[in-house]
Amino acid sequence: MIDFNPILEDIEPSKEEVVKVRGLADKLKDIINKNANKLNINAEAVLLGSVAKNTWLSNGNSEEGKGLDIDVFIKFPLTTSLDDLKSQGLELAHKCVDEADGTYEERYASHPYLTGFIEGYEVDLVPCYDITDSSELKSAVDRTLLHTLFVVDNLGAEQTREVRLLKRFMKMVGTYGSEFKVGGFSGYLCELLVIRYGSFLKVLEGAIEEWKPGYRIDLMNFGTGAQFKDPLIVVDPTDQNRNVSAALTLQKMAEFRVAAGNFLENPKKSYFYPKTLKYDRETLRDAFKERKTHSVLLAFHTPNIPADALHPQIQKTEKSLVKILENEDFKVMGSDSWSDEENTGIILLEMNTWKLTPFRKYSGPTVWDDDNTTRFLKKHPQSWVEGERWFTLTRREYQDAESLIQETLTPGGIRNLRVGKHLKKKLLEKYNLVDVLDLLIAEDADEDVMKFLYSYLHKNELLTRD
Amino acid sequence: MIDFNPILEDIEPSKEEVVKVRGLADKLKDIINKNANKLNINAEAVLLGSVAKNTWLSNGNSEEGKGLDIDVFIKFPLTTSLDDLKSQGLELAHKCVDEADGTYEERYASHPYLTGFIEGYEVDLVPCYDITDSSELKSAVDRTLLHTLFVVDNLGAEQTREVRLLKRFMKMVGTYGSEFKVGGFSGYLCELLVIRYGSFLKVLEGAIEEWKPGYRIDLMNFGTGAQFKDPLIVVDPTDQNRNVSAALTLQKMAEFRVAAGNFLENPKKSYFYPKTLKYDRETLRDAFKERKTHSVLLAFHTPNIPADALHPQIQKTEKSLVKILENEDFKVMGSDSWSDEENTGIILLEMNTWKLTPFRKYSGPTVWDDDNTTRFLKKHPQSWVEGERWFTLTRREYQDAESLIQETLTPGGIRNLRVGKHLKKKLLEKYNLVDVLDLLIAEDADEDVMKFLYSYLHKNELLTRD
Repeated sequence: MIDFNPILEDIEPSKEEVVKVRGLADKLKDIINKNANKLNINAEAVLLGSVAKNTWLSNGNSEEGKGLDIDVFIKFPLTTSLDDLKSQGLELAHKCVDEADGTYEERYASHPYLTGFIEGYEVDLVPCYDITDSSELKSAVDRTLLHTLFVVDNLGAEQTREVRLLKRFMKMVGTYGSEFKVGGFSGYLCELLVIRYGSFLKVLEGAIEEWKPGYRIDLMNFGTGAQFKDPLIVVDPTDQNRNVSAALTLQKMAEFRVAAGNFLENPKKSYFYPKTLKYDRETLRDAFKERKTHSVLLAFHTPNIPADALHPQIQKTEKSLVKILENEDFKVMGSDSWSDEENTGIILLEMNTWKLTPFRKYSGPTVWDDDNTTRFLKKHPQSWVEGERWFTLTRREYQDAESLIQETLTPGGIRNLRVGKHLKKKLLEKYNLVDVLDLLIAEDADEDVMKFLYSYLHKNELLTRD
Repeated sequence: MIDFNPILEDIEPSKEEVVKVRGLADKLKDIINKNANKLNINAEAVLLGSVAKNTWLSNGNSEEGKGLDIDVFIKFPLTTSLDDLKSQGLELAHKCVDEADGTYEERYASHPYLTGFIEGYEVDLVPCYDITDSSELKSAVDRTLLHTLFVVDNLGAEQTREVRLLKRFMKMVGTYGSEFKVGGFSGYLCELLVIRYGSFLKVLEGAIEEWKPGYRIDLMNFGTGAQFKDPLIVVDPTDQNRNVSAALTLQKMAEFRVAAGNFLENPKKSYFYPKTLKYDRETLRDAFKERKTHSVLLAFHTPNIPADALHPQIQKTEKSLVKILENEDFKVMGSDSWSDEENTGIILLEMNTWKLTPFRKYSGPTVWDDDNTTRFLKKHPQSWVEGERWFTLTRREYQDAESLIQETLTPGGIRNLRVGKHLKKKLLEKYNLVDVLDLLIAEDADEDVMKFLYSYLHKNELLTRD
């Protein structure tokens, strides 16, 4: 096995960083508690999340994408009304950002909270109820308290490094994150897996030896796992009726299994670092050309909704477009979608069939069914009998996929499409349907789009390292 | 309802014809009986079939295709050995043809018999056992005796005209004949239907009101119909374990139902006369062109086997070719086959897909299945995970249908084809694969082939009259 220490040096926060982050957290807590006292608000700030659990990845290495979130929650007694919790909680949060000289965004998870940008860190300031058991739960964010407590109590000091290795590995192979865009493993899930299996390597071995769709982990032996139909079931040790792994897709569960197998078979340090994807316009163009399919990109402006609402909408629309095309006999070899989560969404459709013959053979009622036969023959006088059934040729409405896609995106046609209302509005406003080969001729082809196309052509790219 | 008398005048044999046919039959019987006596053979000639039953259609109107068969059977006592029956029966038959100044062909149905061509008629001279019950049956031809007796006993004199109308109607709408080429209604079946329903019109009404797949007619109330799985079940009144309608296909049963409905809705004399099919090379070519499909004819020499063996072989090969094409993603819109039963067989394939993209998406094992995953990835290193399953692109062996058809007809490829050994030999010797549009350019395009193509394009043509 490889030596994990050099990796840990890169991903464990340095002493200086720990001091800085914990110092900032303490400072913010103090500000909140002081103000609560001053304003006579019965509330107390508490540090939760990966900083509290000591499982956060160093912010020094910016390659992993998103930076560190510091979770400072503002606990209210259970007797507080929800209105008071919201107003007083936000008041304290605003004052805290002000006094700490930060900026903020208002965000929403069951109720509004603030994300402050303070001293280079992102700090979530979240009002919550001070519960000790999931039966007292009043708001989904309250769970964070219980989760943090459980991990602090049950994860050995030595195991925090194992969690960090697992989270980092997950990030680098593309299976980390329970947001809809990924559908992968949450941080809490990684922690529970290390508690269950003992170490990073044992989690990988466990996944390979034991996991199958429907596999159950039940640390507290609640015996309630059978109620969940998800690919992986990890009963929440703080709530017997919740599956921590509910957001994990079969896809990401399978990908993790494959990556784990690849790593164990040939362990390499590079699994813990970003993979450099090598692509260029010409190579991409040649690859699409060689497939002799007809690939188009549908590009559109994204609506201003949270990423966790946007991605499922785009994916749903992608699947629905594929279905509409296949229902009309246009064979789709593959599809994918992408968004920068700010302005642009893209759906890729790679078609095996782009043009069709003008007629479609269509089956009607049996000859014994008089009423339906009469109706069918009235509509299709040129029918014939095959076996006991009427058949006819109908002229296709769409002889090429492009006209079908375009018709689907008109006000009249879009009711056939499964599409959320926000995205629907944007699609009806404007879209761009462009041939991938044409796009890859342009010398200023967008870098993100090229990366997306490369990932489409090399779907398993991140699961392995050479 | 229309007046059937003018039709009956055309299809009922004239008095002169009756005298002539019955006279010929009597003469042949006399020759056989005289020779049997002379040679001391214990056998007796008997007139059977439609002439004996008085249900034959006039030979005067030659349009209906095949002429009249006179069935003269040579009955042997049940104690005769099969060898004696064969040798003595054939001897008497040969002598009979000789003395009547005819020519003959030797044919085969359970055992050899002669078809004589005498005084312009075709006469089957068939040795058989003199049985009185199906339990005594020694050879399939013996049934003819029982069938003739049953019909003579049970069909009223007035009903013979009804049988003639039904047979003629069946012929003209294309549902008459139990041979494999047609898969329609036999003469005996028509007679039983008239006995069951009473008249031509009542048979048509019965078919419309009562028939569904699995419909049973059991004149003797044997109660044995449930054992048959055929589209229509008509328990043989002379054998409770035989379905007279066994050769009737669902296709022809349905077609008859449709034709019956068409006739009753708008009765016309023309249903009893051949329909003139109007077609010419240019119109056919335009019709195929308009469909924008790719239609090819596979033409080959037919093996020298009986028509009832040839047609099923060609049909089987047609279906098998379609399956081979569709398995490789070449969509077949329709197919048909034809033979002149002498030299040439033809299979028509109308393709919606003629060329394909070079790659095919191919699914492998799930990622949990280690052994098969290892094997699969060794073969397909460029695979990826979709859901829980491995997928890969494989290069198609055949990117166009023509090369697949041609490969299938090589000594190496033909084992994928379901084809009888006689036809297989002929196909490997030589075949011709020609584009229908090319064929229809040639000014000397074969009349039979054009009629075949016309019928393919107008499948219900015969079921209705304007």
